[in-house]
Amino acid sequence: MKIRKVEEEQPITAQARSPKELLILDCALKLLIETGDAGLTLRKLAETAGMRLSNVQYYFSSRDEVLAAMVSRYFDECTASLVTLTQQSEAATAEERVRFLVRTGLSHGQEISDMCRAFREIWAISSRNTVIDQCLMDYYRNFSDVMTDFAFPGGLDAQVRKQLQALLIPFFEGYSITARSLPLTTEEAAEMLTALTLSIVEGQNRQ
Amino acid sequence: MKIRKVEEEQPITAQARSPKELLILDCALKLLIETGDAGLTLRKLAETAGMRLSNVQYYFSSRDEVLAAMVSRYFDECTASLVTLTQQSEAATAEERVRFLVRTGLSHGQEISDMCRAFREIWAISSRNTVIDQCLMDYYRNFSDVMTDFAFPGGLDAQVRKQLQALLIPFFEGYSITARSLPLTTEEAAEMLTALTLSIVEGQNRQ
Repeated sequence: MKIRKVEEEQPITAQARSPKELLILDCALKLLIETGDAGLTLRKLAETAGMRLSNVQYYFSSRDEVLAAMVSRYFDECTASLVTLTQQSEAATAEERVRFLVRTGLSHGQEISDMCRAFREIWAISSRNTVIDQCLMDYYRNFSDVMTDFAFPGGLDAQVRKQLQALLIPFFEGYSITARSLPLTTEEAAEMLTALTLSIVEGQNRQ
Repeated sequence: MKIRKVEEEQPITAQARSPKELLILDCALKLLIETGDAGLTLRKLAETAGMRLSNVQYYFSSRDEVLAAMVSRYFDECTASLVTLTQQSEAATAEERVRFLVRTGLSHGQEISDMCRAFREIWAISSRNTVIDQCLMDYYRNFSDVMTDFAFPGGLDAQVRKQLQALLIPFFEGYSITARSLPLTTEEAAEMLTALTLSIVEGQNRQ
């Protein structure tokens, strides 16, 4: 149910933006990934988008407005792409679905991808910008629900569901930072995390 | 053994820096925390340290040099402070020591502390700076060893040790970002992670 909801909301958000606004937001994300927070100025953004500064400012009156719109759009896309992935998955059992999610969650670790770069900048920005921080927390909550609804469509005990979310979300994010320092391969880490997740569901841990 | 090694190396690193250098590095960290990567320029640094720009440049010829020295010093301090904490811990059993480590590891989550801010900036910088990236990976490897040597002073099966490191390090880092979006309290998350860690040691999971 939650998965369908996200999908239906997606086009509405996207349609509300004009092509020029979308171009500006795409260029803002590109600048953020390539040059970091420091490189993302309205002047540089106008240059990258091939527009006049005043034209950019017509759509977004401040850098903070661009940031908020860019992050919100980016998170919508990230969630939509998780939803698409889960819909295409052929995993047939809970174990296969958990393994699928875990492998997806650990796929940004062995190299610093553009997605890693974008998230690292957003984490840094969010520590000084409460609007972005709120967007980030909402994104994780939504992502948590999409994950657990996919893996356990028949539902889960409320406390077990909370535990799975509280295990997987921090692990995925931290893995994207620390993976290259760890003594396990991604495949080994994925197997461990899959086993731990299933052990929570089966009540096999000490909780 | 590794814990002692870190302690002995600490004063040597610190002694190698003159008071002026230490002042510059302290101010650099302060600027990074307060204004982010974008706010950390040599000019701003000289101003904050109450020195001439040319004087700062006498000690550090470039911004990258300041960054590398600052990050390396900061990580030394973080490791030293974990070592001190473990030495002061009165935890008497493996379970108590694991719980102690986990609680320590999850202590930056419910608010965005200065340490969170510093790390978020360093993560972002490291995605564009290979020297800082290397420092970060070394820090996590060292931190992993300090943790496991403390919790299991009698040693651990090599594969179990790797699994614990690969569970705790990503979780701690990701928790500092995502904690406020999660449906468990820090105490509940700590109990879950402690139980999962012990289940790996006791071979109770599916691995």
